[in-house]
Amino acid sequence: MAREYWKPANLLYPIPAVLVSAVDAEGRSNVMTAAWAGTVCSDPVMVSVSIRKSRYTHELISSSGEFVLSLTTEDLARAADYCGVKSGRDVDKFAAMHLHPSPSRIVKAPGVAESPVCLECKVTRVLELGSHDMFVAEVVSTDVDPQYLDEKGRFDLDRAHLIAYSHGGYFALGDCLGRFGYSVRKAKPLGEKARAQKKRHAAASKHKAKSRTKGTRRRKAKNAKRKTQKRKHSYPH
Amino acid sequence: MAREYWKPANLLYPIPAVLVSAVDAEGRSNVMTAAWAGTVCSDPVMVSVSIRKSRYTHELISSSGEFVLSLTTEDLARAADYCGVKSGRDVDKFAAMHLHPSPSRIVKAPGVAESPVCLECKVTRVLELGSHDMFVAEVVSTDVDPQYLDEKGRFDLDRAHLIAYSHGGYFALGDCLGRFGYSVRKAKPLGEKARAQKKRHAAASKHKAKSRTKGTRRRKAKNAKRKTQKRKHSYPH
Repeated sequence: MAREYWKPANLLYPIPAVLVSAVDAEGRSNVMTAAWAGTVCSDPVMVSVSIRKSRYTHELISSSGEFVLSLTTEDLARAADYCGVKSGRDVDKFAAMHLHPSPSRIVKAPGVAESPVCLECKVTRVLELGSHDMFVAEVVSTDVDPQYLDEKGRFDLDRAHLIAYSHGGYFALGDCLGRFGYSVRKAKPLGEKARAQKKRHAAASKHKAKSRTKGTRRRKAKNAKRKTQKRKHSYPH
Repeated sequence: MAREYWKPANLLYPIPAVLVSAVDAEGRSNVMTAAWAGTVCSDPVMVSVSIRKSRYTHELISSSGEFVLSLTTEDLARAADYCGVKSGRDVDKFAAMHLHPSPSRIVKAPGVAESPVCLECKVTRVLELGSHDMFVAEVVSTDVDPQYLDEKGRFDLDRAHLIAYSHGGYFALGDCLGRFGYSVRKAKPLGEKARAQKKRHAAASKHKAKSRTKGTRRRKAKNAKRKTQKRKHSYPH
């Protein structure tokens, strides 16, 4: 179908909805939600977050040169929304949303204890772009919740149930469709365990069309698939 | 539980996996996938994408000052992965992945016809950050696939089944947990239709624990909920 050409619109989705915390000169902390945020460099590890000049957090980051980004999860969705709507000039959002400050290692601003990952950041540049100023910052410490370390000591972020922001809505993450590099990875010969699993799945799929428990079986198959997929954390960029 | 403090790590997730297309001096187009990308300003509408100096697309954007970002969907997941792994110096990725160039209105680079949204971009600044250069760009046209316009002419991006990239994996978007502002929105008195719907859901939920079709019912309820939710496209930033 032919394209429709529209005027410029903010339609780059899905994006993260991160909690941005910062402190004032007296050490009082505030937290807001930002969706105009992302990774901008791998080495050194750098992020950017764009914030309107009018926001209280803009003032705090401009003065302190520091902030913390905390990832949001399904359990934090309501808090993420609230912290994006309310101003820290009017309300203590940590208290209102029952969030707990998590001490940082290097910067003064705390992270959010309920978040699986807090990135401590130091501003290196500020770009005045228009409605928003972009704070470009170096990540100086990565503070993680050890409950997401698996039995082999790998950080299993999938278990944290992160959320994404897309066109006005907060979304849970659904099925994993593949891991980085899967489109060019050759299938490995299956081990005994995987062969048995494949046989079970094949038997199960015969009844798929008739089955009333299709949803459950699909979820099980998905989880089994996830486990057998090679966990290689590379990033396309 | 006490935090573990790690060295700086790229752990800001989920993020978009966008197709970045650009052309060479002869008009030949190439496409790569980038995850270090996002919106950086609302007015003017601006995005950024960070690309390694060694990438062919870096060369093309540096020469032309233009690129197009195309959003990726579940159907485009494999292509997104492939275009992030392979180089346009070695292979015609449009041809290899059966992607079709979609003519742009303003820039020379085409979008990807299979994508629901292509953002035509003109570079305004380049920041050399380290491993990556960040191209900051103004969106000059938004090219959309009209099949996602609903009966009221609103662009229903949820129907496009966008994907997110998180810690090495490509993920479908799952349940919508709420729309922007839902944490502070007062419940409206229900209309007749919504009342009937609520009654049906209440009756259905009685059998929930026993039901073997729980998954199906949950999906139906979720879809019904989505329809009744106010569609207000505001953005937290």
